[in-house]
Amino acid sequence: MAAAPSLLILHPRLTTTLRPLSLIYHQFTVHPSPPTRLLVLSARSRHHSSSTSPFASTTPLNSNSNSNATETVRAGRSNSVSSPPLQPPEYAQKIDVNPPKGTRDFPPEEMRLRNWLFHNFREVSELFGFEEVDYPVLESEALYIRKAGEEIRDQLYCFEDKGNRRVALRPELTPSLARLVIQKGKSVPLPIKWFAIGQCWRYERMTRGRRREHYQWNMDIIGVPDVTGEAELISSIVTFFKRIGITAKDVGFKISSRKVLQEVLSLYSVPETSFAKACIIIDKMGKIPMEEIKKELKLVDLSNDAIEDLLQVLSMKSLTELEEKLGGSGEAVRELKNLFSLAETFGYSEWIQFDASVVRGLAYYTGIVFEGFDREGKLRAICGGGRYDRLLSTFGGDDIPACGFGFGDAVIIELLKERQLLPEVPLEVENIVCSLDPDLQGAAATVATHLRGKGQRVDLVLENKPLKWVFKRAARINARRLILVGRSEWEKGMVSVKILSTGEQNEVNLDDLQ
Amino acid sequence: MAAAPSLLILHPRLTTTLRPLSLIYHQFTVHPSPPTRLLVLSARSRHHSSSTSPFASTTPLNSNSNSNATETVRAGRSNSVSSPPLQPPEYAQKIDVNPPKGTRDFPPEEMRLRNWLFHNFREVSELFGFEEVDYPVLESEALYIRKAGEEIRDQLYCFEDKGNRRVALRPELTPSLARLVIQKGKSVPLPIKWFAIGQCWRYERMTRGRRREHYQWNMDIIGVPDVTGEAELISSIVTFFKRIGITAKDVGFKISSRKVLQEVLSLYSVPETSFAKACIIIDKMGKIPMEEIKKELKLVDLSNDAIEDLLQVLSMKSLTELEEKLGGSGEAVRELKNLFSLAETFGYSEWIQFDASVVRGLAYYTGIVFEGFDREGKLRAICGGGRYDRLLSTFGGDDIPACGFGFGDAVIIELLKERQLLPEVPLEVENIVCSLDPDLQGAAATVATHLRGKGQRVDLVLENKPLKWVFKRAARINARRLILVGRSEWEKGMVSVKILSTGEQNEVNLDDLQ
Repeated sequence: MAAAPSLLILHPRLTTTLRPLSLIYHQFTVHPSPPTRLLVLSARSRHHSSSTSPFASTTPLNSNSNSNATETVRAGRSNSVSSPPLQPPEYAQKIDVNPPKGTRDFPPEEMRLRNWLFHNFREVSELFGFEEVDYPVLESEALYIRKAGEEIRDQLYCFEDKGNRRVALRPELTPSLARLVIQKGKSVPLPIKWFAIGQCWRYERMTRGRRREHYQWNMDIIGVPDVTGEAELISSIVTFFKRIGITAKDVGFKISSRKVLQEVLSLYSVPETSFAKACIIIDKMGKIPMEEIKKELKLVDLSNDAIEDLLQVLSMKSLTELEEKLGGSGEAVRELKNLFSLAETFGYSEWIQFDASVVRGLAYYTGIVFEGFDREGKLRAICGGGRYDRLLSTFGGDDIPACGFGFGDAVIIELLKERQLLPEVPLEVENIVCSLDPDLQGAAATVATHLRGKGQRVDLVLENKPLKWVFKRAARINARRLILVGRSEWEKGMVSVKILSTGEQNEVNLDDLQ
Repeated sequence: MAAAPSLLILHPRLTTTLRPLSLIYHQFTVHPSPPTRLLVLSARSRHHSSSTSPFASTTPLNSNSNSNATETVRAGRSNSVSSPPLQPPEYAQKIDVNPPKGTRDFPPEEMRLRNWLFHNFREVSELFGFEEVDYPVLESEALYIRKAGEEIRDQLYCFEDKGNRRVALRPELTPSLARLVIQKGKSVPLPIKWFAIGQCWRYERMTRGRRREHYQWNMDIIGVPDVTGEAELISSIVTFFKRIGITAKDVGFKISSRKVLQEVLSLYSVPETSFAKACIIIDKMGKIPMEEIKKELKLVDLSNDAIEDLLQVLSMKSLTELEEKLGGSGEAVRELKNLFSLAETFGYSEWIQFDASVVRGLAYYTGIVFEGFDREGKLRAICGGGRYDRLLSTFGGDDIPACGFGFGDAVIIELLKERQLLPEVPLEVENIVCSLDPDLQGAAATVATHLRGKGQRVDLVLENKPLKWVFKRAARINARRLILVGRSEWEKGMVSVKILSTGEQNEVNLDDLQ
């Protein structure tokens, strides 16, 4: 076969009337490939064929006289049984070539970018002495049942499994971490410093160009009550930003403490049960009208006076102002001041600022909370974290102080794009090995095996191809050397080695080929 | 705080009456930690608490007068609202500390082993010039609807999402690969050489100590019709085995071709629609009684003569014998002979053997099939693969030849354990930095930041701890150096550096500390 076979495909763009946001969700698309020279089925035939796809129909199982007696097909849909005779009807079907709504494929160029990002997450975590862990992507739904009105809870990607258990695709990693820490008990000495890079899921109406899955980098410290924990966590994120070229001019951290709210609310005999709910409501500030915020705060038993006082404190952007309001003896002010002082010694003062309005959207935070933000104000929060000293005890474990952060893969890629900091991560296969004769395919295999044994990457040409084709492929994979196996050389145990950057070509004995 | 706080936990072993196989599923447990010095709740109280867990109850949503008006809680369960007043009832609950049935956590020691394994998968794939890709763990169920009676289809972990779409946690990676290749069309030049390492799921009764999830390493070649493709794939698996210490004495590959069956069946006018079904039935040989196999083959329209002839051919272990039966002109024999000849040039002849009984359990294979097996016969197949030239066209793409393999993370770990080849993968954090005075915590942060800036891993002690504690932690993390920040040295800009292997200690200027 001298050329690649032609490929009749369903043009993905023709599916846009079905799934208009599919390109927007795809955060990792760096080099979109133009759909050149394609034979394309018409939109009409595409839509016709999609009527048997799960995106367009919920028809129950067909009555199918041809079905195998031993099968246990679940209620759902059936594929066609009237396919052409050359293709067994058992598995002939047109499929939707797109990944399910809100999810992504990672073709090679996007996978290289993901690996680059994760490699940086991992290296920074390891610089800080953290150990990597992971948990199941599917967890018991009970792990996420918190009634504080969190968005993350409303958007839980949950379902019932075949054994009638309520399960959920994890929306975040912290509850799994807490579960594992309690399970491990004293077998792991404190403090625990763990990091994870895991896929997280949510289910929401797809109206805002947000995906249903993303990857999240988490770092957590279990067993350290002091704000040195939070200071260390923020230091690691700053280290990450610096590594990938993001500066304090691009990004800052807004820092506050839930204890600020707690100390204000304690002046007004607000029931403790209202605290987490109030935090979640306050987190919606800027997203829903202020009148709505006030109405919701009243619903969780805050008086008008308490609400006015709270909103006044939440507007504060200076620790001095906060200290004037709350006094210097409370934990909120003391811990915040300590954190800002530690930031100087860590060397990231210019990255952080006090902002009382930051409360974060998770119910379990109890102390310091922080979020990384784009200083141009175009993007959503880049990352967020804080102290959650009571999560382990509310899960049935002992009281162990804890803090951590979550850092998603979506907004950071948007930011890197905005700042033109996305790296080039090319494919690099050092060698391409090709036989010049169909009979020498085995000899080429010998050469490839020899080089791979030396730790060299080799793309072995598996068919007989014209040299023009081989040079084109060599360029695509950024090969450094082309190794040609020709009859006369091979009879002497030699191969021809061409350095592709210079064009220099030599005959080399296979044993000497490094 | 001078010591780690004590931790009252639910001893996981007390849950064994609920989940007796939890330790068996956990393939990566290398160093099980003995549950020493634990305060343990009694089995009775454990079981009592579990009555509110999703594993013990399917009670629908409680009527809850305290629920937030803005909440959209899905039908399922509700947690208690009568918790003690100090813990907000909104999220107080006892959780099951184990991961869901059939799934695993990866605490640090098991994560290091997983990373070691995946690193080897990745490095070998890259030596062969393959590019990494990934697909969503959640796919449309339609991608897996094949009616050939496959086990993988019967065990599909499928459900309906909130938008009434039939989806499934992927049972394998190949259908996603086919979907992405069709979607990409001509934008990716052939041959495509892709690899992936992804989590796959199945749902089955948990009776055989098998997990519901595992990771699978796949390598696939799209666009190569010749058996050079299969030869290259087997070479990569052999390279992987050699890297991790597995020899041809431990493992072999059984190789056959579905074309053998096809050529036998073509003698008996067996309908083509029966072919995939017959293969799936034959794959059960050795797992169910031979009489059952014959009965099932009759059900898919094979005559008694065809069945007897088929079974006779399936017992063949020699290519010469096969050639006598089928003649030398058919594709089956020609391709198999070619593959065995290529194996010599690749240098892995001693690893492979012809065995006509190998057909593999996936419906879509059309040509060469192979499986890696433990020569001691104790373990299930280690890996398996083959040619699937028609999968893309049955999905609505053009006819493109393809081959690939899947290699799970479970059996290989069992094999490495059996052969005592599991590597030690210790935690290694080069430096531990500690202040000798609470006031010097910030100075210690400065030192840690300095070292991390030099690319050194640092475990920063975040609280004031006695030196004895610090030495113990240094030993646990395998630190090379202990860096102490004391008042008199710090005033001179110096720190004390102790090499832990020799005990040698020096005062070093921070600027000179590398």
